[in-house]
Amino acid sequence: MTTTPPEPVRFLDKAGAGRIVDRLRIRRGLTWAEVAQAVGRAPVWTVAALLGKHPVPAEEAQAVGALLGLDDEVVEALQLQPTRTPDPETASDPTVYRFHEALDVYGAAIKALIHEEFGDGIMSAINFHLTVARRPDPDGDRVVVTFDGKFLPYQW
Amino acid sequence: MTTTPPEPVRFLDKAGAGRIVDRLRIRRGLTWAEVAQAVGRAPVWTVAALLGKHPVPAEEAQAVGALLGLDDEVVEALQLQPTRTPDPETASDPTVYRFHEALDVYGAAIKALIHEEFGDGIMSAINFHLTVARRPDPDGDRVVVTFDGKFLPYQW
Amino acid sequence: MTTTPPEPVRFLDKAGAGRIVDRLRIRRGLTWAEVAQAVGRAPVWTVAALLGKHPVPAEEAQAVGALLGLDDEVVEALQLQPTRTPDPETASDPTVYRFHEALDVYGAAIKALIHEEFGDGIMSAINFHLTVARRPDPDGDRVVVTFDGKFLPYQW
Amino acid sequence: MTTTPPEPVRFLDKAGAGRIVDRLRIRRGLTWAEVAQAVGRAPVWTVAALLGKHPVPAEEAQAVGALLGLDDEVVEALQLQPTRTPDPETASDPTVYRFHEALDVYGAAIKALIHEEFGDGIMSAINFHLTVARRPDPDGDRVVVTFDGKFLPYQW
Amino acid sequence: MTTTPPEPVRFLDKAGAGRIVDRLRIRRGLTWAEVAQAVGRAPVWTVAALLGKHPVPAEEAQAVGALLGLDDEVVEALQLQPTRTPDPETASDPTVYRFHEALDVYGAAIKALIHEEFGDGIMSAINFHLTVARRPDPDGDRVVVTFDGKFLPYQW
Amino acid sequence: MTTTPPEPVRFLDKAGAGRIVDRLRIRRGLTWAEVAQAVGRAPVWTVAALLGKHPVPAEEAQAVGALLGLDDEVVEALQLQPTRTPDPETASDPTVYRFHEALDVYGAAIKALIHEEFGDGIMSAINFHLTVARRPDPDGDRVVVTFDGKFLPYQW
Amino acid sequence: MTTTPPEPVRFLDKAGAGRIVDRLRIRRGLTWAEVAQAVGRAPVWTVAALLGKHPVPAEEAQAVGALLGLDDEVVEALQLQPTRTPDPETASDPTVYRFHEALDVYGAAIKALIHEEFGDGIMSAINFHLTVARRPDPDGDRVVVTFDGKFLPYQW
Amino acid sequence: MTTTPPEPVRFLDKAGAGRIVDRLRIRRGLTWAEVAQAVGRAPVWTVAALLGKHPVPAEEAQAVGALLGLDDEVVEALQLQPTRTPDPETASDPTVYRFHEALDVYGAAIKALIHEEFGDGIMSAINFHLTVARRPDPDGDRVVVTFDGKFLPYQW
Amino acid sequence: MTTTPPEPVRFLDKAGAGRIVDRLRIRRGLTWAEVAQAVGRAPVWTVAALLGKHPVPAEEAQAVGALLGLDDEVVEALQLQPTRTPDPETASDPTVYRFHEALDVYGAAIKALIHEEFGDGIMSAINFHLTVARRPDPDGDRVVVTFDGKFLPYQW
Amino acid sequence: MTTTPPEPVRFLDKAGAGRIVDRLRIRRGLTWAEVAQAVGRAPVWTVAALLGKHPVPAEEAQAVGALLGLDDEVVEALQLQPTRTPDPETASDPTVYRFHEALDVYGAAIKALIHEEFGDGIMSAINFHLTVARRPDPDGDRVVVTFDGKFLPYQW
Repeated sequence: MTTTPPEPVRFLDKAGAGRIVDRLRIRRGLTWAEVAQAVGRAPVWTVAALLGKHPVPAEEAQAVGALLGLDDEVVEALQLQPTRTPDPETASDPTVYRFHEALDVYGAAIKALIHEEFGDGIMSAINFHLTVARRPDPDGDRVVVTFDGKFLPYQW
Repeated sequence: MTTTPPEPVRFLDKAGAGRIVDRLRIRRGLTWAEVAQAVGRAPVWTVAALLGKHPVPAEEAQAVGALLGLDDEVVEALQLQPTRTPDPETASDPTVYRFHEALDVYGAAIKALIHEEFGDGIMSAINFHLTVARRPDPDGDRVVVTFDGKFLPYQW
Repeated sequence: MTTTPPEPVRFLDKAGAGRIVDRLRIRRGLTWAEVAQAVGRAPVWTVAALLGKHPVPAEEAQAVGALLGLDDEVVEALQLQPTRTPDPETASDPTVYRFHEALDVYGAAIKALIHEEFGDGIMSAINFHLTVARRPDPDGDRVVVTFDGKFLPYQW
Repeated sequence: MTTTPPEPVRFLDKAGAGRIVDRLRIRRGLTWAEVAQAVGRAPVWTVAALLGKHPVPAEEAQAVGALLGLDDEVVEALQLQPTRTPDPETASDPTVYRFHEALDVYGAAIKALIHEEFGDGIMSAINFHLTVARRPDPDGDRVVVTFDGKFLPYQW
Repeated sequence: MTTTPPEPVRFLDKAGAGRIVDRLRIRRGLTWAEVAQAVGRAPVWTVAALLGKHPVPAEEAQAVGALLGLDDEVVEALQLQPTRTPDPETASDPTVYRFHEALDVYGAAIKALIHEEFGDGIMSAINFHLTVARRPDPDGDRVVVTFDGKFLPYQW
Repeated sequence: MTTTPPEPVRFLDKAGAGRIVDRLRIRRGLTWAEVAQAVGRAPVWTVAALLGKHPVPAEEAQAVGALLGLDDEVVEALQLQPTRTPDPETASDPTVYRFHEALDVYGAAIKALIHEEFGDGIMSAINFHLTVARRPDPDGDRVVVTFDGKFLPYQW
Repeated sequence: MTTTPPEPVRFLDKAGAGRIVDRLRIRRGLTWAEVAQAVGRAPVWTVAALLGKHPVPAEEAQAVGALLGLDDEVVEALQLQPTRTPDPETASDPTVYRFHEALDVYGAAIKALIHEEFGDGIMSAINFHLTVARRPDPDGDRVVVTFDGKFLPYQW
Repeated sequence: MTTTPPEPVRFLDKAGAGRIVDRLRIRRGLTWAEVAQAVGRAPVWTVAALLGKHPVPAEEAQAVGALLGLDDEVVEALQLQPTRTPDPETASDPTVYRFHEALDVYGAAIKALIHEEFGDGIMSAINFHLTVARRPDPDGDRVVVTFDGKFLPYQW
Repeated sequence: MTTTPPEPVRFLDKAGAGRIVDRLRIRRGLTWAEVAQAVGRAPVWTVAALLGKHPVPAEEAQAVGALLGLDDEVVEALQLQPTRTPDPETASDPTVYRFHEALDVYGAAIKALIHEEFGDGIMSAINFHLTVARRPDPDGDRVVVTFDGKFLPYQW
Repeated sequence: MTTTPPEPVRFLDKAGAGRIVDRLRIRRGLTWAEVAQAVGRAPVWTVAALLGKHPVPAEEAQAVGALLGLDDEVVEALQLQPTRTPDPETASDPTVYRFHEALDVYGAAIKALIHEEFGDGIMSAINFHLTVARRPDPDGDRVVVTFDGKFLPYQW
């Protein structure tokens, strides 16, 4: 106890890298749409990946690094393979909760209609993409979110 | 303890009515699409409502009753105001779970893009509809599920 | 194992009595407001008490019994002392959930302002009443729910 | 392991900014009511927003900064878009718990009366405001908390 | 599947016996204090034991049987050894919850003072009794509940 | 990323202040009883308040500060309004757990006897005090803990 | 309350059908291997499907019905589309728990090696089969369970 | 409070050592397969042990240290006896979740077939090894994971 | 809906058989020790097996059947392979809870000493037996419970 | 915000002291048995107490301090009164889990036999000790863990 060993190296993880990207993006006055354009990928993919849900390929990570002036450790962390864990805090936020609530109300109906149309199986969440769009409407514009995944039949 | 009072009346609840509707539909060889057409409502609404997630208006309840030969208590139960409670069993079924998993992966991105496009607020899950469709694809047909709700800004 | 003893008496509990009251009320085409008027109590109190959250005094229980044609066991069960347990199913219904969500967003602010205005203490939920009202509004009528409880200071 | 990379930037989040605002407010001897007046917004909104539940518009954030002598990073953090997550610690505090307890006792009655008065739908928690007031009473003053939200009918 | 075997014997359990005792007590207009007097035991012990938390000795079980006209199966069930399981429903009832809330506020202080006064150890909940009393008070009568258990030191 | 902003101020919270008070008390060889005497309050209140469960009035906070040599930030933190959250760690400690176990065994009986003696209502945990005492007994001294709160009737 | 409506039809669900199949199989002295052979499917698929985890095709359901003498309602229930919900009781049984424990110990390693060998993606649990085998070993025979699923790359 | 005692020594734990090993492995461009070869153990064992699930024998720990240039404290931490705790974050990652989902669907079948083949007992998760392999398949290569453990009969 | 299909067969499960055995044992005035002697097995094994935790071999099941006059369905149910699921109700009973509490206090020490004495591995709970005994002691007799299981080293 | 107050004193807690003791013990090549011998207490008590589950008397704490070269703050922390909280991480480790699993399988039998032998009551976990031993066995040595506690009858 008379000597204190040096504190071990602490590495930046993907979540930390995502927080840095988001805050610097705000400081530079850039929208996510602009970041996505600079990266050359779809907006939902870009936000999800930069916030830590996908490995960002080296080229895209460097493009973000150049856009936001990130140092090498952040660029490295963006490329790491993530562990994709549910985040209960995000799920309980009202903006996200409404989607889970809609699944609670319509989930059994979605399931019944998928089986009726396709047979026993699932919509893949891996071979999958998702879009967020605005649809103008005189009674108030609408948020339109589309889940689009390959059908996978149960196949023994 | 020498006398046994009559057992109190047991009423059919909406969940029970839904199970009866579903099983008789199968026995009569009807698809949900055919039931929806007979009722004159969208398929997702029809399945959700008949399985207990919406009050079924009297006219639609009677149409289903006629189609499936339901007795009056079932027709009455379909019209009751539901308590819309999440069903953990449905949520953990692989076909439904993939939607929650997609929200776990993309929820923060959906939230960020809604705020960027619309400002601080939510997609309504009340002024809302949802569709399930098949999109043909040479690499395997795709399940396309669309959430469509009015944007509601935080408004004090 | 050769003889089967008689099944023990089953008594109707308050929750069961509440379900009977509600269903017969619907069959007779009565609103809760009309039931409350017949009982001579405030509507929120009346619904809560008849659904099992308060002991219904004998006179009110008999008034309901006369109005809906209840048998004696139901009238007895309405008068029992309840155990007031939270019902997670009700709490997760969207109509009720919005109130819990509002408390999640504004709870800390409510607490801070109660302490600032009254000092260290609480709003009583026992010496307490609650109203539900409609306030007309050109942008859409509003639900106005008022919690009104005696302030109780921490007092050693 | 022979070199220690510099620790990545840590940014102040909204919760941290809220703690700074609250403690400096106390040190300067200011009530929330005075802060709200300086900001020009309702007290409940002001407390909730400054503690991290709403994005604070730039003008209001700067007004608070001037009032309390905040540095730029705190003023920036106040303006960020929040993730509004329930806080179980706050919900279990006796002052806040009494509101949840009241909902546990009266939630089903509130739901029944909203549906009876308005039809199938909800009180919005987004197009919504809330007040905390003192009502003098000879038997002990009362805490009066009013929830006021737009009615939203289920609308497919 | 062509024959249905006889349904197996169902035995009355202690919880069921407790419900029978309580309802018959009410129908006969007896208070718990009167039942306790007939049994010759303290009121808290009597209520707890008859509701299923203690084995009721044969003599006391028969005294209750005679008082309330119970049949033999109920008298037998009262004497069974219980499994004493916490009941979350009772614990969340406001009348009981206040005791748990007081332990949440004062538990650490109780622990510190027991250790200061007695050393490292516990109050036994087995060699233990508890009383509920009314203490008149001009500002409103008071509920006085006393926990009285033998101190047990940690003793290896 | 090239500059590191100064780390934001970290304030001492009530829990931290409580840990400092307790450890310095031990180092100075003072019992809680002696601290309570110096503060001029009951022992249970004193321990609970200093460990963070009550706002400590300025005079008492300064008395403790003088007794233990606390600096100003600790004295300030002791006076803050607490959020009184249950602490599952304390609740599961055997010394505290025995009290919850006793409530699990006797809670329904306490509830029944309060209602029988006082009517429908609760023991207040706010207008409330609690004592811990030793009662000599030839079979082993006993821990006697008394809950004493004002009865509050349900009052609409 | 003077008339009791007829109790609504109760349908046999898949779980109930599975219990009937299993008990009659035992009474007839048949192994699962023999049932699988009669059905003409792999043993794991056969047991899982008959216990309610897959829709059993009509032909296989009738084969089982003939083998075990099932009535029509059981044969119908076997063919229903299941909701595949996790069963915590089964998961905590020691024979099944050891598999979850192995995943707790080796799950991160499995994930790392899948990504190293295949890239970012998953083993499908839908396009998937599983075998249970005995491997003789002089130190004690071994249980060998093989998971075999198609690799699905994350594909936007 | 006027003097600050030195902060106590912080030791590197196994999880921290695992994070260092993984990040340095990536920086040096080494696959887990190459690390396993350098260590001379099976790949699944190597990854699990280095990430903290097994004590790494001194020789293997030093081999890894030499390969990656680890300092002594990391090499020491790798050798420590672990507490093998489930990691809910890893378990909910889609790549690992599919294995738990497969157990949810097939667990009861695995159990039934083990008992049928071996009698009452379990597959050991201690006398156990596991492999991850790729099986080429024209319809898409397959992930093949094999659990191989000694059968242990219940033996009193 | 005009015809009601016959209710499907209900089979007695192991838990139900255990309740029948226990109640008939009490009615016949037999101790578990006497039942164990009649069965010819150790008392702990006998109680556990008859209450549903082990398959009872045919001979032992018939011996119990003869002793207690059980009908064939009960004797059959005793022989079924159990799913051994934890029972939270039993675990929270004070008599059983004390064992879990002792593991909470001494578990880490047990683990450390097993590893020190035997190396990395576990005590088997499968190749395992357990005894309950009374040890006379002038300060009060003692309950002595011994866990005795084969050591299993981690063996890849 | 322009000045940063000094960070408050951080004290070493019992858990931290335990981690220091364990790591220094390893570095000095001492077994727990040797530490126990130096302290003069039983091994299980010694490990549990030093890892934070018991207050270590001053003399024993100083003996450990001398053995391992601990500084004064660590020696002080070892003597503190612990809050004995269950540690879910330890409980889920396979070596410890097997004991909980054995209680899940045999808990009801232990309870039944304690009541049969001693009457209604418990084994004390306070007046209690526990041993871990190795019993040689030709089929593999066995771990023998003995729970030995005073019987406490329910005594009102």
